[in-house]
Amino acid sequence: MFCKIVTKEIPADIIYEDDRFLVFLDINPVNYGHLLLISKKHYKTMYDVPDKLLGEIFIKCKELMGTLKESMNADFVVEVVVGVDVPHFHIHLVPRYFNDGLSNFWPTKKYNSKKEAGEIAERIRKRLG
Amino acid sequence: MFCKIVTKEIPADIIYEDDRFLVFLDINPVNYGHLLLISKKHYKTMYDVPDKLLGEIFIKCKELMGTLKESMNADFVVEVVVGVDVPHFHIHLVPRYFNDGLSNFWPTKKYNSKKEAGEIAERIRKRLG
Repeated sequence: MFCKIVTKEIPADIIYEDDRFLVFLDINPVNYGHLLLISKKHYKTMYDVPDKLLGEIFIKCKELMGTLKESMNADFVVEVVVGVDVPHFHIHLVPRYFNDGLSNFWPTKKYNSKKEAGEIAERIRKRLG
Repeated sequence: MFCKIVTKEIPADIIYEDDRFLVFLDINPVNYGHLLLISKKHYKTMYDVPDKLLGEIFIKCKELMGTLKESMNADFVVEVVVGVDVPHFHIHLVPRYFNDGLSNFWPTKKYNSKKEAGEIAERIRKRLG
């Protein structure tokens, strides 16, 4: 579906476009002005995007976050990479308002002990190498 | 608070550290293994982070997302920049499971008309320049 937006087979309200990426309105916005940024070349997930392009993408996101905050009079902008819903790497930029009734995040829990947290940390460190 | 983690005044389960950034376990995890990446130099928000460093940060995030998915046997990893809760730029990396009972995203709405969506898009484009 996103590839068809790139080729203009599916119309979209395009905010920005260059040879590397495309930014357009999400048709199912969390709040009005909710944007999607996609790379024109198809990468399935963030892991598949080459480092150089990935850096460029997030530098563009930074600019867009400021633009979005100002143009939509948002209190803040949230940037999310879900990486599971659509198999074409994309980033959500969502204008948020203190009074929009949405939670800032998922509910959180606690580790049962410092030891347990330490074991989890060790597991991740080991894999990181 | 995050600055005190950088200076080791507050202990944390550190996963990765170099001269630019620090990665550690969030003590209030959405799911176990939930990580925070912060820049060692204090930047208030993503807008304040220099482009070069920002690119490097997200390239590291990409690596960490893969590591986290594997080490925590997660189904996917979500990367979120909230930019409002703590005034020190940080990125959440949250291991997620299809059966963890959490919603993938906030509830969404629809634009009332194509015209309305077009007007919102124009407003953002104008600000982007």
